[in-house]
Order: sequence, then structure tokens, then C-alpha cells
Amino acid sequence: MKFIPEPSRKRLVVLAQLLSQQTKVKITSEELEELSGWSQSVIRRDISLLELHFGAKGGYPVEQLRSSICALLNISEESSAEKKCCIVGLGHLGAALLQDSLFEPFKIVAGFDSNVNRTEVLRSSFPLHPTSELERVIRSEGIQFAILTVSNESAQATAEQLVKCGIRGIVNYTACVLSLPPQIACENVSPVRALTSLSSRIQ
Amino acid sequence: MKFIPEPSRKRLVVLAQLLSQQTKVKITSEELEELSGWSQSVIRRDISLLELHFGAKGGYPVEQLRSSICALLNISEESSAEKKCCIVGLGHLGAALLQDSLFEPFKIVAGFDSNVNRTEVLRSSFPLHPTSELERVIRSEGIQFAILTVSNESAQATAEQLVKCGIRGIVNYTACVLSLPPQIACENVSPVRALTSLSSRIQ
Repeated sequence: MKFIPEPSRKRLVVLAQLLSQQTKVKITSEELEELSGWSQSVIRRDISLLELHFGAKGGYPVEQLRSSICALLNISEESSAEKKCCIVGLGHLGAALLQDSLFEPFKIVAGFDSNVNRTEVLRSSFPLHPTSELERVIRSEGIQFAILTVSNESAQATAEQLVKCGIRGIVNYTACVLSLPPQIACENVSPVRALTSLSSRIQ
Repeated sequence: MKFIPEPSRKRLVVLAQLLSQQTKVKITSEELEELSGWSQSVIRRDISLLELHFGAKGGYPVEQLRSSICALLNISEESSAEKKCCIVGLGHLGAALLQDSLFEPFKIVAGFDSNVNRTEVLRSSFPLHPTSELERVIRSEGIQFAILTVSNESAQATAEQLVKCGIRGIVNYTACVLSLPPQIACENVSPVRALTSLSSRIQ
């Protein structure tokens, strides 16, 4: 697989999303700069990683550019739909995430909570299980990603359990910084983390 | 203000959080590597930005290191507590975020929804307003940050409205990529974005 520097990979993920929001057929790097806030030269360098065989004369063809990025990063709708996810921790936040539409095209196939009352009372289009079933369900369903919405106190222990069960990536909604083996991908998206990061940029 | 490269700033935000989770008095860069997954040399380079006057012999003093990072980035608990936030869009997700504890030490002072029924029915420890009150409340309260939890369809228009009202940073929970003026900070934390980003790293 081609090596893609981490900042470029992140920008390309956003570019693919931006392109999917466009209604026009062609788009110039000037317009992409306007939409994304990154400079044209950064955008052109990121796009050069795609080694495209179509020119940029009069702008990039929007749909072709988008699908080339998705192919390079393996994030097409088809490949995403095959990647199964689960939600671990069904408190207020986890329960609010029990809507398929929030994750499309990814497929949520299970939810977990240590409190059996929660798994019995909450409604969802996929099964909810007690945490004791974590390993069995993750292995039998072949779940790759977990959305972690447990309390800060149980975050690290639960994450370690998920890694043991074979989970490859964690979306961390807790304020806890997780210590994970290097091969496990993690995205930290807690409200406090996001606000702290904003806050550090605005003085 | 000292220039801090963006990747270093992001790592320092995480390091400060990691340090606040430690119970020991001193910590070595080896231990920080183990906890964070970044190499010791990267960590040492980030820490060198702090221009510390205490040595690293036998490890960095945990609390002093944490407070130096917070001071550099202006993200101490005190400065955060002064930064007022609001939640815009009180659907399932926005409503689930109506808990002060999720944002501590940041202070949520208002919630908004275009549906007056929602603002009347939902409960929170701070006032909920119809969206028509957005500008008045943001200006009178001096709100700096907004948590955006509206639908993808209204995301861009609402973000533009927030910028006009004087908001300086947006935590974007929608799947929409927002086009914002360069001086407005934005953190994208939608579940789909996070999963797509994980997915692009795991092939």
C-alpha cells in the first residue's frame, strides 16, 4: 500500500466528503481552497498523491476525483458498508447514537451495556447485549470498530477488553486518553477534547 | 504569542489530558511514549516548545509539566471555565449532550432549537431558547463556542449564522464539511467522519 503522510490522509478524508457535497461537474483548486480553508498548493500536493491520469484543466472532475480519493484510502461507500461497528456504553450519549442514519454508510450491528435494564429498555434496529457478551458477539459478527461511550472511569479497561476481542479501531467519546497498542486506530471525539482543542487555537 | 505547529499543538492537548490522569509525581519520556503511542523523540521535541526551566532528570514533574502545557496553550481549567459555550440543535444527539458534566470545565450557558416544543419540553441546568434568539443570547452572554448538532441539511446555514453572531469556534457533530472564514476554528467530530478516518488507516 502507498504511504500517505498522516496530515494528507486527514485532509483527503475531508476533501472526499466536501466533493460529495458538490453539485457541479468540475471544481478548481481555487474553489477547493475557498471551501476547505487549506491553501491551493497544499491541496494540489495532496491530490498529487493520487497519481491521477486526468488533467486539472478547467478544474478537476468532481466525481472522478472523489472516487479516486476513496479508492486510495479504501473509504468507498461499498467498503465502509462492509465494516461492522458496535456501540459500547448505552448511557445518555450512547443511547442518542442508536440511530443508524448517524453512521451511514457504516453498519452498526450491536450495542452493549453492563446494565441489563438498559439493553432491555432501549430500542434500536440492531440487537443490544449485556457487556458479558462482548467477546462472543464481536467475534461471531466480525465487528471491526467500536464507538466507546462508557464513563471516563471504565474507558481504559473497556478499551483493553475491546482490543482483546479483536477490535481494530475505536471512536472514543470519553474524555479519557486511551493507551492502546500501536496497531489499534483511535479517534478522540469527546466534547471536552474538541472544545479544549478549539480553545488552544483561539486566544 | 509563540508559534506552535498544528501537529504539536494537538499532541500537547492530549499530553496535558494524559498527565492529568496520572497519579505519580514524575514521568519519563519512555513512559509517555508507552501511554501515548508517539515516539520519545517526538514527545521531547513537543515538550521543548515549552522552554522549561526544570530538568527531565529521573522524569518530568507531572503536575508542573501539565500546568506548563496548559499555560502555553491557554487551556487551564480556569481559562476554560470562562469560555462560554452553547448547543445548537436539540435533536437526539443535542439533547443527549444537555449534561454539564460532559463539558467540564467548559461552561454551557444556552441551548437552541428551531422547534419551540423541544426547547420547552427538554430539561437542562441552563436556559433553552428558540433559534430566533440566537444572536441576542450569544451577544448578551458573550458565548465563544458552539456545539453544532443540527441536521446535515441545515449545518452550513446555521454555521454561517453563528459566525455572524460572533462565535469563534465550532464543534461540528454533523457529517457536513463546513466552509468557514479562516479565523473561525472548527473541530469535526461526527460519528461518520471518525469512522471514515479510522477506516482509512486500517486496510
